[in-house]
Amino acid sequence: MKIAIIGATGFGGAELIRLLHGHSKVEAIDVFTSSEVGEQYSNKYPSMIQIYDQPLLEINYSKLAQYDVIFASTPAGVTSTLFEPLMNKDVVLIDLSGDFRLKNLEDYENWYGKKSAKQQYVDKAVYGLTEWAKENVKGSTFISNPGCYPTAALLSTIPLYKEDLVIPGTCIIDAKSGVTGSGNSLVKSSHFCEANENISIYKMNKHQHIPEIEQGLKMFAGTEDTITFSTHLVPMMRGILSTTYINVKEGTTEDMIQRAFEEAYKDAPFVRLIEEAGMFGTNRVRGTNYCDIHWDLDERTNRLTVVAAIDNLVKGAAGQAIQNMNVLFGYDEMDGLDQIPLYM
Amino acid sequence: MKIAIIGATGFGGAELIRLLHGHSKVEAIDVFTSSEVGEQYSNKYPSMIQIYDQPLLEINYSKLAQYDVIFASTPAGVTSTLFEPLMNKDVVLIDLSGDFRLKNLEDYENWYGKKSAKQQYVDKAVYGLTEWAKENVKGSTFISNPGCYPTAALLSTIPLYKEDLVIPGTCIIDAKSGVTGSGNSLVKSSHFCEANENISIYKMNKHQHIPEIEQGLKMFAGTEDTITFSTHLVPMMRGILSTTYINVKEGTTEDMIQRAFEEAYKDAPFVRLIEEAGMFGTNRVRGTNYCDIHWDLDERTNRLTVVAAIDNLVKGAAGQAIQNMNVLFGYDEMDGLDQIPLYM
Amino acid sequence: MKIAIIGATGFGGAELIRLLHGHSKVEAIDVFTSSEVGEQYSNKYPSMIQIYDQPLLEINYSKLAQYDVIFASTPAGVTSTLFEPLMNKDVVLIDLSGDFRLKNLEDYENWYGKKSAKQQYVDKAVYGLTEWAKENVKGSTFISNPGCYPTAALLSTIPLYKEDLVIPGTCIIDAKSGVTGSGNSLVKSSHFCEANENISIYKMNKHQHIPEIEQGLKMFAGTEDTITFSTHLVPMMRGILSTTYINVKEGTTEDMIQRAFEEAYKDAPFVRLIEEAGMFGTNRVRGTNYCDIHWDLDERTNRLTVVAAIDNLVKGAAGQAIQNMNVLFGYDEMDGLDQIPLYM
Amino acid sequence: MKIAIIGATGFGGAELIRLLHGHSKVEAIDVFTSSEVGEQYSNKYPSMIQIYDQPLLEINYSKLAQYDVIFASTPAGVTSTLFEPLMNKDVVLIDLSGDFRLKNLEDYENWYGKKSAKQQYVDKAVYGLTEWAKENVKGSTFISNPGCYPTAALLSTIPLYKEDLVIPGTCIIDAKSGVTGSGNSLVKSSHFCEANENISIYKMNKHQHIPEIEQGLKMFAGTEDTITFSTHLVPMMRGILSTTYINVKEGTTEDMIQRAFEEAYKDAPFVRLIEEAGMFGTNRVRGTNYCDIHWDLDERTNRLTVVAAIDNLVKGAAGQAIQNMNVLFGYDEMDGLDQIPLYM
Repeated sequence: MKIAIIGATGFGGAELIRLLHGHSKVEAIDVFTSSEVGEQYSNKYPSMIQIYDQPLLEINYSKLAQYDVIFASTPAGVTSTLFEPLMNKDVVLIDLSGDFRLKNLEDYENWYGKKSAKQQYVDKAVYGLTEWAKENVKGSTFISNPGCYPTAALLSTIPLYKEDLVIPGTCIIDAKSGVTGSGNSLVKSSHFCEANENISIYKMNKHQHIPEIEQGLKMFAGTEDTITFSTHLVPMMRGILSTTYINVKEGTTEDMIQRAFEEAYKDAPFVRLIEEAGMFGTNRVRGTNYCDIHWDLDERTNRLTVVAAIDNLVKGAAGQAIQNMNVLFGYDEMDGLDQIPLYM
Repeated sequence: MKIAIIGATGFGGAELIRLLHGHSKVEAIDVFTSSEVGEQYSNKYPSMIQIYDQPLLEINYSKLAQYDVIFASTPAGVTSTLFEPLMNKDVVLIDLSGDFRLKNLEDYENWYGKKSAKQQYVDKAVYGLTEWAKENVKGSTFISNPGCYPTAALLSTIPLYKEDLVIPGTCIIDAKSGVTGSGNSLVKSSHFCEANENISIYKMNKHQHIPEIEQGLKMFAGTEDTITFSTHLVPMMRGILSTTYINVKEGTTEDMIQRAFEEAYKDAPFVRLIEEAGMFGTNRVRGTNYCDIHWDLDERTNRLTVVAAIDNLVKGAAGQAIQNMNVLFGYDEMDGLDQIPLYM
Repeated sequence: MKIAIIGATGFGGAELIRLLHGHSKVEAIDVFTSSEVGEQYSNKYPSMIQIYDQPLLEINYSKLAQYDVIFASTPAGVTSTLFEPLMNKDVVLIDLSGDFRLKNLEDYENWYGKKSAKQQYVDKAVYGLTEWAKENVKGSTFISNPGCYPTAALLSTIPLYKEDLVIPGTCIIDAKSGVTGSGNSLVKSSHFCEANENISIYKMNKHQHIPEIEQGLKMFAGTEDTITFSTHLVPMMRGILSTTYINVKEGTTEDMIQRAFEEAYKDAPFVRLIEEAGMFGTNRVRGTNYCDIHWDLDERTNRLTVVAAIDNLVKGAAGQAIQNMNVLFGYDEMDGLDQIPLYM
Repeated sequence: MKIAIIGATGFGGAELIRLLHGHSKVEAIDVFTSSEVGEQYSNKYPSMIQIYDQPLLEINYSKLAQYDVIFASTPAGVTSTLFEPLMNKDVVLIDLSGDFRLKNLEDYENWYGKKSAKQQYVDKAVYGLTEWAKENVKGSTFISNPGCYPTAALLSTIPLYKEDLVIPGTCIIDAKSGVTGSGNSLVKSSHFCEANENISIYKMNKHQHIPEIEQGLKMFAGTEDTITFSTHLVPMMRGILSTTYINVKEGTTEDMIQRAFEEAYKDAPFVRLIEEAGMFGTNRVRGTNYCDIHWDLDERTNRLTVVAAIDNLVKGAAGQAIQNMNVLFGYDEMDGLDQIPLYM
């Protein structure tokens, strides 16, 4: 397998290289960029000195068409047009941006404030929440990789909606993310002296992942729901903890909830149902593709609290992209991803 | 003023000393303890070497009765009996523990799992959420200082309930705290390699601050409500960010919400209504008694999100205790507390 | 006292405001800047909302001349000319930059790579390492405030050189600093995901504080020496720990070392000689003007290790500047600076 | 290969499991312990739930003798006797503690304050600083794995001593370590609120790694030298940065230094000579077995500064132990260790 990565200088791209380095089928990885062409990749990521010293290559479609897989890890608004010339080539495309996620183009333009990709390409893209989209991913050549927050939010709620255990209109998702979620650009909120020893809230009721979560609930659980979703910035580098509050229907028991999760994820090697809250935390998944889920039903309020933990750069980005590649090509789903988390 | 602090070796006690050091009326501070008697205080808090080198004194009631104010910063279950012999003495008592907060003793025993204080003493204690209890504090000699989470939760919700803008039964409070909230005892969850680069959830639906928040809503807004409340541990030392989600009643406008908050806190020097989310974060109040509040009303869901930020050791403990002392004695409310936060 | 601060938007300026807010003699503080004129200061430092909301004022010499004290907290290369028109006015000038520190202009130009200030003004400036320059500061109207690293390095070595206990040519200073030392500009090394969980070294053998330390040894101990000095960036916000290694002369005993330090700092309220290493650390001085010093003599090598801890923004910048102001005006040396460190 | 790990509940043991999980020759890993027998390993390290759920096994010599390799990751003073019954069995022993490192038993007893192992076993143990001991490791069945600090210190100084470029008696090593270096026991210095936002110094001139470094210089460079060595605790989890200061002999040029390092490590896949200081930092090696080295020669003082960065748990413990296992068995030296560092 020969792999190309476009937009490789961001954290998502660096993480793709880190994980693909250990993939048994990958023979070559090349990195493409729209700026800094010629610069050695390890100048930007000195962690890779002597390991991955390749130069950044200019984006060239005839060259790109010769790879087996192209990952795009570019900002929103870029792959919407960048991928067009590659759509009919014999190459698998996996986009990590939000450009092909929202099937309703109006939603994209409203929430992203950018011009959307063309409907035909958005339609073609398979929304690759791997655990729920496996069959579609298998037959596809174009994957739109889910956002980090939606991955955590959807994995922890789809089983509940699907089994009709919860009351629509009551779902509130309070998400917390580490600073890598904002990427490596030099903005004030990522300055050490601003992010450290601080927790803050951002994009209140305006986050572009809101319609993606709602679409996912419809797509995979068949439920139209309107949710509340908030995002907080936490002084750590990696990790998302997503806390979902949702009212259960009368008659919903703990057993029914447990069975819904177990049934949903019995064949999902990366989803772990964690029995005790004390065993749960974002450091338990650091650096890996796992999604840990824990829940508690409050009898006082008949409200269910579900927490999910992922590494936003892995299951929330590069890892799930590779997981999708594995499923698409029929490889072992864990190839390149079978690691023990870097707990401490 | 001569001040005694019992249980002074915890973070709450150390913070009392730090803040009282700058109080214009305080002439002497003595520290009492049930263990390590005789040890120099600055051996435990070397930050205070040459500033506060006093020895830890043995608890002695006849001595204690000679102080003007006694602060107790002991763990739950201690002041319930420790304070008894001092109840009829001419000394102001301010308890920072949970022992006298819950007026319903059954609630205390259920949620704390400990034997409660006697009803007569619990009845005597004024629950000192200063902004809402000022008149009662003035005439009192015995203050039960609020918990850290309830302080943030109540300050951000009472105005809404009081003005009848929100729908009971819909209130969910997702709180996040720094590690000082767990005190200085050596437990696994406070080990640097466990707490750092991690966010976790604890005491799901079991936190003893739940009945305290519900009691506060009843006490200050006259509303009986049952809430959902969760607590997360964040990799920072100080700070609580409390995110409240609550449905507004039909007809509630942004103006009505803003007026409710402005009216409630127009004479509250420590409550700041923050207009922009970007200005809001726990680092904006670090080391001080401020409580910052910001809110956003989501038109898609008719749900209101209110965030409050406090320093858990100051407004959430020692600072509010001193604020109560100031109000009780008729001092300037900001005496000892008029500091600019240690932003970075 | 009416105070003006030029270059107030940096960390040094914000720290001046934080500390001056508690100074008993200060009636007014105004902030001046070369950009963002008119912006409310608390927009940049939202920690100060409702506390310090003044607008940034345009730099205007006739206005500036009416203040009692002007602090400049501008980058190197600015006050060298900015202060010129104020030199003969009846106003005390205190410069926190490096522009007037090096008496030898060639040194300035070599190490800073900028054009130096004029010799006459450099000559006029009193190098305000307060503990050693008290008498000169008293009679002065123009203070050049020491650098953060030199403050820690000089306070921990001058007594040794002065008492002739150590061997010139053997002094190595290994310094470690928190990220506030790099200021609030958005550079890669201050990005949370670069600074966090990382320790690095920078400006090896090229740091502009090298000649300042050597000049200080000559100025206050009368010794010409050439030192080695290294600076490391540590994942914390505040604090400098300076570790000095130096060979002692034959016959130098522990008693002689201890007496040298005690004698040197017997009247210095901010210097604390710490007896046990376990009591020593940068968090013991956080937010305050203290300089903690601890040492150990190794009998195997006859080498002395001296560690000093300061808060780089306080004793290393704004705090020492205020200490100098206090000494210059004959105020209590601790006015505005008598705080207990924010240990946790 | 069947692997046993004794003392597996510490960080060193957990790290062995994490790395061996990706080793191509390892079929089984079992964990042995003197306490908590029967407990599931993933209860202690919930990061390993569903990945490594094995129970902790009781230490039993006849069982242990059936493994191919036994790693001991126990505290100092344990393997000195624990390994005795295994010495003549057909099993490779790799000890990560300090018990068999110091060939001079008196040194052990003086610096560790414990009873040493028997001379015959200490003599048998090969000190496994892999890059310099490869030939000895190959023929051995008993490896004493180096300490974390000595690994960084020796890799950055042996080439200089060996090529006779430096002046004995001038070597000062200022080391900085993350908190995992102190292990997972609950001590005050590892409490989040003590370690965070703090840098401190410990065991001044008393660290047990001092004689190990001096022995290494003699063993691999043939030089008897007495060094100064200091250790600092830095608020991060992983990583050691070791800064060495040493005077060069007259005539030593930059070229000679560069050649010494290049020659020494031309066949060392884990040692990276980093050209620019900006590329260097402990985060560049996190989670991996790399040792990065950078140096600068100061012409003013003729003093050389060498910095080395390792992950203390990998190259400083578990990783080097596996590297030694690979060399000993003739496997690819990078098996299980060929990973890209977790930069952010």
